[in-house]
Amino acid sequence: MSKNDSISMSVIRRLPRYYRFLSELNDQNIDKISSTKLAQIMNVTASQVRQDLNCFGGFGQQGYGYSVSQLKEEIKNILGLNNDYKAILIGAGNLGKAVAMHMNFEKLGFELIACFDNNEQKVGSKLNGITVKNESELDDFCNKNHIDTAFLCIPRVCVENVLDKLYSHGIKNYWNFSHYDINARYNDTMVENVHLSDSLMTLCYRMNNN
Amino acid sequence: MSKNDSISMSVIRRLPRYYRFLSELNDQNIDKISSTKLAQIMNVTASQVRQDLNCFGGFGQQGYGYSVSQLKEEIKNILGLNNDYKAILIGAGNLGKAVAMHMNFEKLGFELIACFDNNEQKVGSKLNGITVKNESELDDFCNKNHIDTAFLCIPRVCVENVLDKLYSHGIKNYWNFSHYDINARYNDTMVENVHLSDSLMTLCYRMNNN
Repeated sequence: MSKNDSISMSVIRRLPRYYRFLSELNDQNIDKISSTKLAQIMNVTASQVRQDLNCFGGFGQQGYGYSVSQLKEEIKNILGLNNDYKAILIGAGNLGKAVAMHMNFEKLGFELIACFDNNEQKVGSKLNGITVKNESELDDFCNKNHIDTAFLCIPRVCVENVLDKLYSHGIKNYWNFSHYDINARYNDTMVENVHLSDSLMTLCYRMNNN
Repeated sequence: MSKNDSISMSVIRRLPRYYRFLSELNDQNIDKISSTKLAQIMNVTASQVRQDLNCFGGFGQQGYGYSVSQLKEEIKNILGLNNDYKAILIGAGNLGKAVAMHMNFEKLGFELIACFDNNEQKVGSKLNGITVKNESELDDFCNKNHIDTAFLCIPRVCVENVLDKLYSHGIKNYWNFSHYDINARYNDTMVENVHLSDSLMTLCYRMNNN
């Protein structure tokens, strides 16, 4: 696999979709797929599929197409899903609960090792087998454990205080649901923001222009 | 405002981000912004900003830039956020609760008029002032009310049954958290899928390739 440092974010953001679709095809025991068919599923052009995959060294065979299981494994490796990055979740409200209960972190390269909340009523409850700790224990926990990333499911106004703590412990990777601009405060952080409202606005646009 | 039917989905998907950033600038009482500065915030090139906005008729003035409040309102109109689309939510689990409680639907062009769940323990509880109804009441509710869209926060295995019902009542717009391919079953539906795992895989890739 040849790696290219200048791969654009738009290619990278398509990789999880390739991986999802290939996993589904693989589950259906489909052995091979043409770039044309894969393009249809992905809703891009066949040329785009070939370009995307060429960024990582190709993988297709002229006249055969792609081996589904092999391409799935290649993309899994490219995405780094075999990692075991240690993650903590801040915020055990509805969204935090949904994230903790419904995501299969292990398959996504992460292990959720702790959850924190500042609401006494949530402290002590269990999320997917993990006991919610009081946010006051965060510093101590960060001192004693190696943490690769934090998932922030807290209101925007609560982020700054928690972020400063996490950053002071060297945590620089964030999966952020909070609508707070982490990069603006610490520009050496790596942040994936989730803005649920963006997709709803897109639906609104499409309904409005149908 | 000149409309263009062939505007690409990638332009459309950037509009909510323009809208979010412009709203924030407007809240900070910032009057005007150059395409260069807007491009920085959006993490695209200034030429991309100009191209994007030209799809809808421009709005900028040479040597002045963009009026923040005006551009925000224009994009709000383009997105159709002044609509009052009637929406129902299926699934009052953690994710459904998070969606119902934390989204400001009114600002996004929607009104949530009912929630349904098939779990007796959830029926009768309140989400943001809306009483959760039994899913058995869904048909009757659809007969008596105009519904523009459904938000699906139910497990994948439960979708087909619910979807068939909703579709039979003419509901063709879906905000879908369920990982079920609605378009594959009904190809005349308009679907925005939310795949939280995609952004976590992207974070994994970025951490792995940092």
